[in-house]
Amino acid sequence: MKLGRLNHIGVATPSIDASIALYRDVLGATTIGEPFDLPAQGVKVCFVDTPNAQIELIEPLGEASPIHGFIAKNPAGGQHHVCYEVPDIHAAKTWFEGKGARVLGEPRIGAHGTLVFFVHPKDMGGVLTEIMETPAGTH
Amino acid sequence: MKLGRLNHIGVATPSIDASIALYRDVLGATTIGEPFDLPAQGVKVCFVDTPNAQIELIEPLGEASPIHGFIAKNPAGGQHHVCYEVPDIHAAKTWFEGKGARVLGEPRIGAHGTLVFFVHPKDMGGVLTEIMETPAGTH
Repeated sequence: MKLGRLNHIGVATPSIDASIALYRDVLGATTIGEPFDLPAQGVKVCFVDTPNAQIELIEPLGEASPIHGFIAKNPAGGQHHVCYEVPDIHAAKTWFEGKGARVLGEPRIGAHGTLVFFVHPKDMGGVLTEIMETPAGTH
Repeated sequence: MKLGRLNHIGVATPSIDASIALYRDVLGATTIGEPFDLPAQGVKVCFVDTPNAQIELIEPLGEASPIHGFIAKNPAGGQHHVCYEVPDIHAAKTWFEGKGARVLGEPRIGAHGTLVFFVHPKDMGGVLTEIMETPAGTH
């Protein structure tokens, strides 16, 4: 498998609204998507574009959100995960498992509408790593 | 100011050698630079290329390395900072300070040989943010 595009970095925030103001007014982002709920992942999501990659702002959604713990430990928010693209999600899962890396659950639909999975940070040098299938028609 | 390219994400590691093996053998990176010491920043550095951005592996260098504390808290390593490019480092410093964001020290030469500064994570949604002047002749 070849390392694919760095699609986005996931940044957890207690408030997407406040983060949008930060990225727009201080960091100078000019293309910011509409926030939307992703109930299957327990997060509210908003994509901020840089010229070559995206920032995925994620805010806890619902009581069972998997990022409540992260925000409890990091009340101001912070870097949560890194996401790389692959051409075939199932081949990638087989690859990572064959290398002894722990894939967290079955591939499921992610924020870009394609299949994704996460790899345990303990097998990725402390970095929670998302692997996503490249959306058709991009790049 | 406009948000520039996501030049790299900084990933701290207790061992660049072990991280190179991870990025090469498990994540499939095919272009990995030679590690080098950056004594002014107290880190050993190695760049791993993805098709659109880089991963900057950083390992503590010397007793006074600013990332000893990070590694103590995150023994396996982890996401340390995010770096965006700007056309003019001094104009960027003036911009951030004008927005009330704390710039950490004066611009200094970074790992790509151009001037950089860091912005306090408390003013960046919990994300330690490096701002670097785009190297001449790139992009």
